Amino acid sequence: MATAPHPRAPAVAVIGAGQATPAEQHTAQRVGFLLAEAGVTVVTGGLGGVMAAACAGARQAGGLTVGILPGTRHDDANPNVVVSIPTGLGEARNALVVRAAHAVIAVGGEYGTLSEIALALKAAMPVVGLGTWELHRDGTADSGIIPAADAADAVRLALEQVRGT
Amino acid sequence: MATAPHPRAPAVAVIGAGQATPAEQHTAQRVGFLLAEAGVTVVTGGLGGVMAAACAGARQAGGLTVGILPGTRHDDANPNVVVSIPTGLGEARNALVVRAAHAVIAVGGEYGTLSEIALALKAAMPVVGLGTWELHRDGTADSGIIPAADAADAVRLALEQVRGT
Amino acid sequence: MATAPHPRAPAVAVIGAGQATPAEQHTAQRVGFLLAEAGVTVVTGGLGGVMAAACAGARQAGGLTVGILPGTRHDDANPNVVVSIPTGLGEARNALVVRAAHAVIAVGGEYGTLSEIALALKAAMPVVGLGTWELHRDGTADSGIIPAADAADAVRLALEQVRGT
Amino acid sequence: MATAPHPRAPAVAVIGAGQATPAEQHTAQRVGFLLAEAGVTVVTGGLGGVMAAACAGARQAGGLTVGILPGTRHDDANPNVVVSIPTGLGEARNALVVRAAHAVIAVGGEYGTLSEIALALKAAMPVVGLGTWELHRDGTADSGIIPAADAADAVRLALEQVRGT
Repeated sequence: MATAPHPRAPAVAVIGAGQATPAEQHTAQRVGFLLAEAGVTVVTGGLGGVMAAACAGARQAGGLTVGILPGTRHDDANPNVVVSIPTGLGEARNALVVRAAHAVIAVGGEYGTLSEIALALKAAMPVVGLGTWELHRDGTADSGIIPAADAADAVRLALEQVRGT
Repeated sequence: MATAPHPRAPAVAVIGAGQATPAEQHTAQRVGFLLAEAGVTVVTGGLGGVMAAACAGARQAGGLTVGILPGTRHDDANPNVVVSIPTGLGEARNALVVRAAHAVIAVGGEYGTLSEIALALKAAMPVVGLGTWELHRDGTADSGIIPAADAADAVRLALEQVRGT
Repeated sequence: MATAPHPRAPAVAVIGAGQATPAEQHTAQRVGFLLAEAGVTVVTGGLGGVMAAACAGARQAGGLTVGILPGTRHDDANPNVVVSIPTGLGEARNALVVRAAHAVIAVGGEYGTLSEIALALKAAMPVVGLGTWELHRDGTADSGIIPAADAADAVRLALEQVRGT
Repeated sequence: MATAPHPRAPAVAVIGAGQATPAEQHTAQRVGFLLAEAGVTVVTGGLGGVMAAACAGARQAGGLTVGILPGTRHDDANPNVVVSIPTGLGEARNALVVRAAHAVIAVGGEYGTLSEIALALKAAMPVVGLGTWELHRDGTADSGIIPAADAADAVRLALEQVRGT
């Protein structure tokens, strides 16, 4: 067992809705591409929309993609998921998408994405947002989500966080 | 096996932070009391703050309380949890708190509560809010959370939803 | 919040197949009845066969029953489940059935029951067996499962374990 | 999004104890090597013993390894896990190890391994055994586990099952 320790790449989760606008998909694809180019593993929920676009971008850069699926079928994964993890946990798998990463980039997103943002912030994991939810309490904006201007800015901010920790 | 079918009571989850203000605890206790008085089982995450106050209120009315715990120890449950479910799932148990109920009442709350609100809305389960998160997308307020004026109003709104479905 | 701490009852899981023989169902019903009579909460996987029979027996003695379901529907629970917990975790919920209890009584059982026996033994939780799996390693019988002669013996052995710890 | 669909490799889970004998570790390493050589992704529970040996073997053949961890820390993974999935589910993650694969090879093993064997058989997934548990019901041997003579035989049997389905 003389194999040298394998340097695992850091992982960033790209989260967003399974039904996304063309602009959101374009952004997610660019985010996936830039993460893979930086040697980062791209984790998603494995389905369509933002998830599929992020995986497609990462594969274009030759990167590794992980899809943490709600159901029990490998075939539910989008075609650019290299490692499919069919959890069978339903939406409880959202906690695992977050845990599998070192930082999160949210692109748009519906309620499922909001749950992932909240679980990441609860775990003190950095969350970078691109056109995603804005959170308020008692009329005051919550500062948990780090806003990004575009895909490149989001990847830069996420990598800063991953490398800083 | 001639036992008559047992009419299971509907269940409402009372969600909120483990560290809560006296006002939030007072509200949660009142919510728990009124739910139990209406014959509803009170589900919580089983720990302190809003969760403990809601259970205490429900027990004062002689009600049934369920605590769905993140850890593996029954003893983590607050003293007014009648049925403790130590899941060992960590924050992934938030999905189970929601699934165990027919409607959700959020009292205040931090990021963990936000994840439960999001998971409930994702599952199209009614969420009534008392001084909790306000959600915005693209500068527009999201209308998913039904706002309540006080504990009695929250319970009335939740029961309307439970009985309407 | 002056409510006196509620003394939570100990819980015993009764595990076994969803399709069971009349003899297994009769045994499970007797086990459930005797546990409830002893003031113990009966935890099951919430479905039919051994699970339904144990719940029916417990309810005949006026006891509390908890059903930890694989699916997301409260209505999947058998009619004698008082507290239904629809986890949506599929067979991963077997770990939660075990964690919710202080000891386990296995009545007959197929592979799902075997997974619960194994998870209980892994967690060093007492497992009492009635006509259930026999385990061997390297041609030697494993001594993890405590064999019982009948329902009354199984309940006696399980309560000894619960009260001894 | 013109990327060609990525042909995901089939995955085989190698399961066994975190504390294993030198002979078991040697077998597991050989199993991992042969699976990777055949282009199969090796899934394990990500920790030591049989899990570490299988990952080491797979990496020696340049293969892809996935570690589905019970805790929440990436650093719990053995050094030859390429994709670490810290689930935070404790032993409930055993269900996910099984679901992530198309077939299972059990090398030795304690109660945790037994739970994975049982969950795989429950899901009608092929289980090949090398010096692992023998199961009996009513004095009759259960035929669920396919016995293998050695590492090469185990891999051959598992691949037959994966390709046959």
